[in-house]
Amino acid sequence: MSPHRPTQRDLDPHLHRYARRTAGMTASEIRALFAVAGRPEVVSLAGGMPYLPALPLDSLAEELAQLVLTDGMTALQYGSAQGTPALRERICEVMALEGIRAHPDDVTVTVGSQMALDMVTRIFCDPGDVVLAEAPSYVGALSTFASYQAQVVQVPMDDDGLVPEALDAVLGALRAQGRTPKFLYTIPNFHNPAGVTLPVARRAEVLRLCAEHRVLIVEDNPYGLLGFDGQIYPAMRASTPDNVVYLGSFSKTFAPGLRVGWALAPHAVREKLVLAAESATLCPPTFTQFVVSRYLAAYDWKGQIKNYREAYRQRRDAMLAALAQYLPPGCRWTHPAGGFYVWLTVPEGLDTKAMLPRAVSYRVAYVPGTAFYAERTDSPGPSPTDAFPGDTFPAGRLMRLSFCYPTPERITEGVRRLAAVLEHELELQRTFGSVRPRPMVGPQSPSPDTA
Amino acid sequence: MSPHRPTQRDLDPHLHRYARRTAGMTASEIRALFAVAGRPEVVSLAGGMPYLPALPLDSLAEELAQLVLTDGMTALQYGSAQGTPALRERICEVMALEGIRAHPDDVTVTVGSQMALDMVTRIFCDPGDVVLAEAPSYVGALSTFASYQAQVVQVPMDDDGLVPEALDAVLGALRAQGRTPKFLYTIPNFHNPAGVTLPVARRAEVLRLCAEHRVLIVEDNPYGLLGFDGQIYPAMRASTPDNVVYLGSFSKTFAPGLRVGWALAPHAVREKLVLAAESATLCPPTFTQFVVSRYLAAYDWKGQIKNYREAYRQRRDAMLAALAQYLPPGCRWTHPAGGFYVWLTVPEGLDTKAMLPRAVSYRVAYVPGTAFYAERTDSPGPSPTDAFPGDTFPAGRLMRLSFCYPTPERITEGVRRLAAVLEHELELQRTFGSVRPRPMVGPQSPSPDTA
Repeated sequence: MSPHRPTQRDLDPHLHRYARRTAGMTASEIRALFAVAGRPEVVSLAGGMPYLPALPLDSLAEELAQLVLTDGMTALQYGSAQGTPALRERICEVMALEGIRAHPDDVTVTVGSQMALDMVTRIFCDPGDVVLAEAPSYVGALSTFASYQAQVVQVPMDDDGLVPEALDAVLGALRAQGRTPKFLYTIPNFHNPAGVTLPVARRAEVLRLCAEHRVLIVEDNPYGLLGFDGQIYPAMRASTPDNVVYLGSFSKTFAPGLRVGWALAPHAVREKLVLAAESATLCPPTFTQFVVSRYLAAYDWKGQIKNYREAYRQRRDAMLAALAQYLPPGCRWTHPAGGFYVWLTVPEGLDTKAMLPRAVSYRVAYVPGTAFYAERTDSPGPSPTDAFPGDTFPAGRLMRLSFCYPTPERITEGVRRLAAVLEHELELQRTFGSVRPRPMVGPQSPSPDTA
Repeated sequence: MSPHRPTQRDLDPHLHRYARRTAGMTASEIRALFAVAGRPEVVSLAGGMPYLPALPLDSLAEELAQLVLTDGMTALQYGSAQGTPALRERICEVMALEGIRAHPDDVTVTVGSQMALDMVTRIFCDPGDVVLAEAPSYVGALSTFASYQAQVVQVPMDDDGLVPEALDAVLGALRAQGRTPKFLYTIPNFHNPAGVTLPVARRAEVLRLCAEHRVLIVEDNPYGLLGFDGQIYPAMRASTPDNVVYLGSFSKTFAPGLRVGWALAPHAVREKLVLAAESATLCPPTFTQFVVSRYLAAYDWKGQIKNYREAYRQRRDAMLAALAQYLPPGCRWTHPAGGFYVWLTVPEGLDTKAMLPRAVSYRVAYVPGTAFYAERTDSPGPSPTDAFPGDTFPAGRLMRLSFCYPTPERITEGVRRLAAVLEHELELQRTFGSVRPRPMVGPQSPSPDTA
């Protein structure tokens, strides 16, 4: 044993070799907690895992065996970097439900829509480039933007999603600085994590503002077909094919373990996307593309989506009822009309990140709100959002609750436990006074647990 | 119709938005030709597609159906960004065949080893960083390095692979410039495209030089188990776990359409790889990982590799016999002891890229050698290899011939057609004099056709 004390350099002899972007890649502090949260006795309201028992495994097993026997030689072989033509045609049929008219040539199949996000960022963002996103935004997107050293400027939302006036103000402030954002990343339907939906009139307003400022829109829409009353909103891409890159996914409407997503992009952008994807993975898995194609051809996939919707609606109802019944005064939360998530604000003085260990000891887990905000401290130069003192979102008082995976009974029990945690924290506050919330840190790296 | 003439900006309204790295992403000029080369009447000696008819589809179909019925809920769900523990354990068993002792904790499953290459480059390379590679090198690696704006310095090979003296000279020249390469990318076994193998003594020498110069080694080994006489070379990783990142793949030993590869990395590097992979795809497809795990558990996979080896050996024999029989004087080629490729040098004055259209009209296709060299013109500053005037590899006279996919009879016919093309070009040369070869351009973006 060497007698000298180990330093960080000793612990990682490769430390001097990493790229600058790698410095920003750090594991979430809450990751260890989620390992504990995975125990069966904990009700996890943290994860974004779909409720798969709704799937018809018997018929899937049969279809898959047939697929191997009839198409095995092709399905197990390399394929095109853009994805199989058959699946890209099917994807156009799926998008038609949202009013999108698209040609399969403009679709690029990706390894989940996460890879689409990665590819879009790769082709557009140099280090220091500005990307706009909602505040809060999907943790996996923030992590991707960080890995390309983009500067994320987050635009306030309200119960109707992105606030056009706030977007206008941010765009104006950036223009005054001579900076043009590379794109606006937005989740218009059943937002992750906020659970809100952008009304049709606001979509038009956002499209108009982005056109005016020549800012591309990246429309991420994994939950669009999961509206609980069956309403399907028109995609922003439907009216504006030239200025929107649309991201879709089969993870929530079929199964995430296949990792099949896609990007629909203006033709010239699509060419770049395919070249980027080719150097990233050569081609997406041919086999899982065949599985999705066959599923869409052979099975009542719209009926399956109805089953999912119904399962999630029941869970949403259970969560909203439990929140109303158990939570202490001073809490407020969003009322999602679809998707997976409720966004909860806890009473003043509480800190959702600081109280997470207690929650886990009470056998309930959630994702603290700070995970959904980009870190501002390492932004180069003054942050444009500093110009908006109104944007003092109480990130420390926020949390994301997911209702996608546990049964309604478990959701009710989980919220009951969460209420006990909040009561306990409020009791502490009354006894010892308010603790100052910790400064925001984020984005933590995503994981399927927090996605 | 607007009366003004369209410019490039008009054709792509997003042109001003792309990142700097995207400028280097251009489709290969030869891609259109490969579309033609895909026609059944053309013998393609260009592609790197494995010969899948050797696979046992009946039993695979049965196993897959069982997999869905018994493990469907897990196999179709999100998984860990690092890959499933079960598959990582199996991967350690596979690597043990090459003398590697590794812990599953240090394995990261990726979407083919192409993604592993992308992730390694992502965590290590800032724009302008130097990466060493063999001359020639795998086109997909060159494309990935280019997409991270790394500067590739290629080190000469001979019939025994990378030349240690040349590596020493390049490392010395770079050191004199104050530059340390981020890593050496090497394919020690049955090289793509060169078809050569690094002898054991040279491996030790390369390891020693890289340790001395503190340069990490990225050992890419997709073909290591496909040695035709059954010999398995010890991996460089086996003796040097701390300074080698090892990349493996099931694409050539099982099936590429599943896109299952991996990286085995020193522990601290592995942590960064997983974080990078998480932001790239959240997690690799759970389903295809289950398929590979089940295949390895239920099937005689070593017997299957023997079947592959035998199929490829017959094809290699057919190609070498046909080359000896049909090719005109002045040609030379490598004699691969495994893998997929022969590396052919044509007579002086011929240009393999210029003559590709004629080859396709003669119904045979190959990959011109220029694809396997990094473009030097956009390197920042003086290229270190300028110091080595001996490195005037006749890239224009080189081509890669693959023997993995067509039957032995088709291979023989393909080489016969190629010989006719060469005779025709030589006849033209005798009549009109030598044409000066075009300057090198590369790397073209990879595609499964050229991978």
